[in-house]
Amino acid sequence: MGQGPSDIATALAEVGRRFDARNWVLGTSGNFSVVIDREPLRLTMTRSGIAKGLLTAESLVEVKADGDAVRPADGKPSAEALLHVEVTRARRAGAVLHTHSIWSTVLSDRHAPAGGLAIGGYEMLKGLEGIATHEHREWIPILENDQDMLRLAASVRHVLAANPACHAFLLRRHGLYTWGESLPQAVRHVEILEFLFEAVGRTEG
Amino acid sequence: MGQGPSDIATALAEVGRRFDARNWVLGTSGNFSVVIDREPLRLTMTRSGIAKGLLTAESLVEVKADGDAVRPADGKPSAEALLHVEVTRARRAGAVLHTHSIWSTVLSDRHAPAGGLAIGGYEMLKGLEGIATHEHREWIPILENDQDMLRLAASVRHVLAANPACHAFLLRRHGLYTWGESLPQAVRHVEILEFLFEAVGRTEG
Amino acid sequence: MGQGPSDIATALAEVGRRFDARNWVLGTSGNFSVVIDREPLRLTMTRSGIAKGLLTAESLVEVKADGDAVRPADGKPSAEALLHVEVTRARRAGAVLHTHSIWSTVLSDRHAPAGGLAIGGYEMLKGLEGIATHEHREWIPILENDQDMLRLAASVRHVLAANPACHAFLLRRHGLYTWGESLPQAVRHVEILEFLFEAVGRTEG
Amino acid sequence: MGQGPSDIATALAEVGRRFDARNWVLGTSGNFSVVIDREPLRLTMTRSGIAKGLLTAESLVEVKADGDAVRPADGKPSAEALLHVEVTRARRAGAVLHTHSIWSTVLSDRHAPAGGLAIGGYEMLKGLEGIATHEHREWIPILENDQDMLRLAASVRHVLAANPACHAFLLRRHGLYTWGESLPQAVRHVEILEFLFEAVGRTEG
Repeated sequence: MGQGPSDIATALAEVGRRFDARNWVLGTSGNFSVVIDREPLRLTMTRSGIAKGLLTAESLVEVKADGDAVRPADGKPSAEALLHVEVTRARRAGAVLHTHSIWSTVLSDRHAPAGGLAIGGYEMLKGLEGIATHEHREWIPILENDQDMLRLAASVRHVLAANPACHAFLLRRHGLYTWGESLPQAVRHVEILEFLFEAVGRTEG
Repeated sequence: MGQGPSDIATALAEVGRRFDARNWVLGTSGNFSVVIDREPLRLTMTRSGIAKGLLTAESLVEVKADGDAVRPADGKPSAEALLHVEVTRARRAGAVLHTHSIWSTVLSDRHAPAGGLAIGGYEMLKGLEGIATHEHREWIPILENDQDMLRLAASVRHVLAANPACHAFLLRRHGLYTWGESLPQAVRHVEILEFLFEAVGRTEG
Repeated sequence: MGQGPSDIATALAEVGRRFDARNWVLGTSGNFSVVIDREPLRLTMTRSGIAKGLLTAESLVEVKADGDAVRPADGKPSAEALLHVEVTRARRAGAVLHTHSIWSTVLSDRHAPAGGLAIGGYEMLKGLEGIATHEHREWIPILENDQDMLRLAASVRHVLAANPACHAFLLRRHGLYTWGESLPQAVRHVEILEFLFEAVGRTEG
Repeated sequence: MGQGPSDIATALAEVGRRFDARNWVLGTSGNFSVVIDREPLRLTMTRSGIAKGLLTAESLVEVKADGDAVRPADGKPSAEALLHVEVTRARRAGAVLHTHSIWSTVLSDRHAPAGGLAIGGYEMLKGLEGIATHEHREWIPILENDQDMLRLAASVRHVLAANPACHAFLLRRHGLYTWGESLPQAVRHVEILEFLFEAVGRTEG
């Protein structure tokens, strides 16, 4: 990835402040990861229970493919580390971002019976990597929330395989997962999707 | 508590700026307290009539268990000092935060006839201390507002005793009271609850 | 008033930034005044066509009782200078603030047929000077908007005389006028009223 | 125009931060241009794919009347450069601003069947250049979105000719185009129109 640990910490802190100002990571919600090695897989990710508006290098932990901490060895990664690993593998993502916004929460519940949310016809869709026209129809799968992380990780794996073109998924009454080749691309995807959720949510009334 | 007065003032000022930026303490609304001694009980709390976005050490007053000022002796604590005392005793809280947001105000009125508001099924509930699953159902009692502070303090005492698991209560058309073992935990509770109020408020439509 | 010109400019600039951040003075909307003398009446007020988030000493103009500029003599006060003069006289206000928010605009239209908006039962009402209980009922008159400033000033005079207890009035599809003995009190009134407008607006649905 | 390149970059960066803070240019959406020469026509405009909250001199590219880059020669202007050129010519604008807000998106869809949106009776309309009364009725044409920029530019030309008094147009489910003689005037138009969209959107319910 070509970035040292302190570059990553600085970049994630900036993302945290930006999302915090928009109320997408209230409390200590949300978690962020960046891939730092592929073979074997290593992610730098936010620790459990940290306010995202105040990230420092000490807020991060290095994690391996089973979701356990490598450095510091007693670091406690987010409980959802395995979901980040699944996304990283299925999409060869360089960064995975998970946020909790009002509109993603509201829509994830409203559209859960349909198994997902289709968004089409918006210019903003062009902000999703590889999309060149507003005539695109993005299907955003919605998974039932689950505290059993092994089971939820398996669901994520299944959903990503079944929806090879999707840029994101929602966990019901929980929040958004999206990703990118790089951290800036993943940030862009969060912003695009949050915009679309609010536009759709207000249009539905 | 291990914090000196100036640490507490600095921490409360930061909380004030954060909540002010989110419009949870407009005007001079809201009040904050931190326990500085248990035997006898001493709280540092915000004075009456102070804008919370501009707190300094001079904005604070030390209060004893009857709600009167200790230092400065002529300091005027918030009129709701007694409610902070009740919460501190009933929950052994280290910090109590009271905010006035739009959504807590709207929901406190809408759900007053039911005596409270149940919130269940949201991942964000895990941000409340001791809650490990979104399957939790949080009952948030709603009390009628009252300018007679002795009577309102008695109501708070009764409600806290009758709802030993609750993390917060609402005063009707008034606002939120929540607390924590520490100030950061109390701040987290405010953020979690404000998020949930808005999510529920928008879902109800 | 005991404040020099540069103190007033500094204080108004801070108010401008605060209101601008909340979108209450978008474009170059809104205007602010502070009384600097009573006999004869002199107000320092914002010039016409100035963005309120960027106020400096050069953004202000001294005005006399007929709404014309005193210093600089070629200064162009806000077109609504006469309304500030009316309020200053009728209420012996030390500061008058006029803002354009979404919710004041929406409610000023929705309730115009009734000639005003009654707000009662909210704790936030206690932020209005002289109000000691949420059981207060505040009547906020709504005037039809008018580009004829002499005629509108006469309407304001009439409405203030007919409603001696009111803390504010709305101009239909235009915005809020409120005031205070001092600038901080007027600021508090803006914040309290904007909060109440949004709470009422969302409660009405 | 009287402004050097670094003045323009500084001014556009400030506009970008301001609009970004209000969520009007999320992701890398929106684009801004300033006329730097009339004969032949030269615009400084934002490059494609740049976050508007972080603009620097390197984020800009000089463009000629066919929408191609002049300096740097390999610079990639926004795909919508031709629309800026059309506006600049039809209105002799000094600056053109394109933003993507929630309310412009929602209203552009809701009113598309009528071909446009009429806004009348609001004091804020006086913030539009040349409008002296709230009794003005502003017609904001809505064009169907189109990825074929030559065709869309022709539509824009047609709409501007057919609506010589309009201050702005909307692209359906896409966003707002407005302009001004100067950059500050164009900024004011964005703010006025965004205010009006939200006020109308909430009034319609």
